[in-house]
Amino acid sequence: MHKKLMIVGPTEIEEEILALGSKPQVYMRTPEFSARLQKIFANLQYLFQTKNPVVFFASSGTGTLDAAINNFLSPTDEIIVVNGGSFGQRWVDIALRYGIIVHEIKVEFGKSVTIQQISEAIQKHPNAKALYTTLDETSSGALTDLAAIGTLLKQYPDILYVSDCVSALGVEPLKMDEWRLDVVVSASQKALAIPPGLGFMAVSPKAVEFATKSKLRSFYFDILEHLKDHQRNQTPFTPAVSLVYQLERRLEKIVNEGLENFQKRYFALTEEVRSAIKSLGFEVFAEHPASCVTAIKTTQYDAAEIVRIMSQKHNIEIAPSGGSLQHTLFRIGNFGNITSQDIKAMAQALAQTIEELKHD
Amino acid sequence: MHKKLMIVGPTEIEEEILALGSKPQVYMRTPEFSARLQKIFANLQYLFQTKNPVVFFASSGTGTLDAAINNFLSPTDEIIVVNGGSFGQRWVDIALRYGIIVHEIKVEFGKSVTIQQISEAIQKHPNAKALYTTLDETSSGALTDLAAIGTLLKQYPDILYVSDCVSALGVEPLKMDEWRLDVVVSASQKALAIPPGLGFMAVSPKAVEFATKSKLRSFYFDILEHLKDHQRNQTPFTPAVSLVYQLERRLEKIVNEGLENFQKRYFALTEEVRSAIKSLGFEVFAEHPASCVTAIKTTQYDAAEIVRIMSQKHNIEIAPSGGSLQHTLFRIGNFGNITSQDIKAMAQALAQTIEELKHD
Repeated sequence: MHKKLMIVGPTEIEEEILALGSKPQVYMRTPEFSARLQKIFANLQYLFQTKNPVVFFASSGTGTLDAAINNFLSPTDEIIVVNGGSFGQRWVDIALRYGIIVHEIKVEFGKSVTIQQISEAIQKHPNAKALYTTLDETSSGALTDLAAIGTLLKQYPDILYVSDCVSALGVEPLKMDEWRLDVVVSASQKALAIPPGLGFMAVSPKAVEFATKSKLRSFYFDILEHLKDHQRNQTPFTPAVSLVYQLERRLEKIVNEGLENFQKRYFALTEEVRSAIKSLGFEVFAEHPASCVTAIKTTQYDAAEIVRIMSQKHNIEIAPSGGSLQHTLFRIGNFGNITSQDIKAMAQALAQTIEELKHD
Repeated sequence: MHKKLMIVGPTEIEEEILALGSKPQVYMRTPEFSARLQKIFANLQYLFQTKNPVVFFASSGTGTLDAAINNFLSPTDEIIVVNGGSFGQRWVDIALRYGIIVHEIKVEFGKSVTIQQISEAIQKHPNAKALYTTLDETSSGALTDLAAIGTLLKQYPDILYVSDCVSALGVEPLKMDEWRLDVVVSASQKALAIPPGLGFMAVSPKAVEFATKSKLRSFYFDILEHLKDHQRNQTPFTPAVSLVYQLERRLEKIVNEGLENFQKRYFALTEEVRSAIKSLGFEVFAEHPASCVTAIKTTQYDAAEIVRIMSQKHNIEIAPSGGSLQHTLFRIGNFGNITSQDIKAMAQALAQTIEELKHD
């Protein structure tokens, strides 16, 4: 029996998009395939709200985070990382792997970084070459104000401005150019609601300059090689063709709906999730919560038990938390093909689940 | 109109396997998904003929080649690379990217490396830590005798023995343990005949030892992290779920058929391709040709024109060659869901194509 996915990726996928995963393969080094890629590349620019090129890799989201470190830095470079949860921590872990000096802004879990914190960190670490942020810190659901940070960074034009937008791209406003972002990465299995296996990276001219000086550029993720092939509407290595079909159509549908309408629709669904959980006595954990990811703290019930019962008795997968949070925090995602009806069913199942836990 | 794929990957895919690309997603951090992965990991061991763990990445084949360099070496390490074409050259390019000292055995294009060449290279470069080979040098279709090299390397137990088996895994005999290979990499879109997007890497205990000393291990491809999760039948990062479904079933089918039967069947199909092209006056280019990849040299006709006409008039994609070879060499692949009937149709189309070129 299929379990409804209300985790934070992968997602429920529209029938029409799912079906494209079964199309026969094609040879990818043809003018026909390049024409598809040209359209995909253009639609990705719309999604990222940028004139910069957006390339994609066969990789998970973490592959693109790795690429966003190793393409632009060298060992002993200093960077500032906003660390408010697992994905901030992932920036730290990747950077340390490569001998980069990391200055962390430790943000209380569930809170969003303030402009003052960023400003102080930059002043304290004048040699920092880059600032690494996370638009939606998916472990807590906290949203970062990338626009405000972009405004602050006008005073620091040498700093490379990078953001992990893996779970926020598409459903949260993201204006790469207006907000002066240099590197934005994302992945296929969140708002794009196609299967996992594709990662995306958009790069500004300043990022390209950084890349030419990097001593860490990997072979596979080398942005300079990817950009060369991007210019002729190709990819340097064999693309994941079945996922590309799905990406192509999904992007078309988002473009047809219009990004603002798309975002409004998902904001409304997110609001439905939040009023449903509030009516059950829960609260949204994050101070400034991001669209489509709702983290919920509970001390009254065991969060791991809630997740287990929702899956086993109600066939609805919601997301557990890792490590020390597993018993106190769970998360509900409403990415992809989720309707009001699905949210009502989830809320009903959650009500039954806590009833059951009360009586245990 | 669908064009029949007789390139060297991606391939024609069986209907049953294609259909799995449309299955809804599941949450992957569950005992159910781990049970699937456990079976997949076991079947991959059968395919690689090894007791060593075989991990997979969301990546193209080149991603796994990158992983097979950066996991095991450090800058200024010396290695020997068998370079007989584009994929030997790729080992060289990746290694040079990381500051590794590369001693190349330059093998004449279309020929296979001899044991004497390997032996001489090892004696000439006693500090070489690893030997990088390619089972099927897909650019020429030349097969490497990995068994014989394995026997030679018994005398050099410190050398890490690595092979790119991207296009040969499955269709050529490959006995990782018997032949004493330490690292074997492959990808999903050749003999496995599922869409591109998954890469595979099998590692011996000696390879793991090398990995612990490497100063180049990337974050995304870090074999030590992948092995930790492999032990509990999981993956460190989100797997490409739709491709995993397809992999699971395809492996089951190969196991059910039996690897030897599977290889015999593809050898027979390859022989059909070769007798067809011989009856048209062509010759197989490689001295020791590998199964499923037939490179054909032609000076009488323009190879690029042959490829173009086959695609445009006959809806059969065969593989062009790159760079200086584009007008003199083309390649026919018979990976995946290709039947005797398809080979007859290809031969007939090829006959018409050269008739047309004769009259031009």
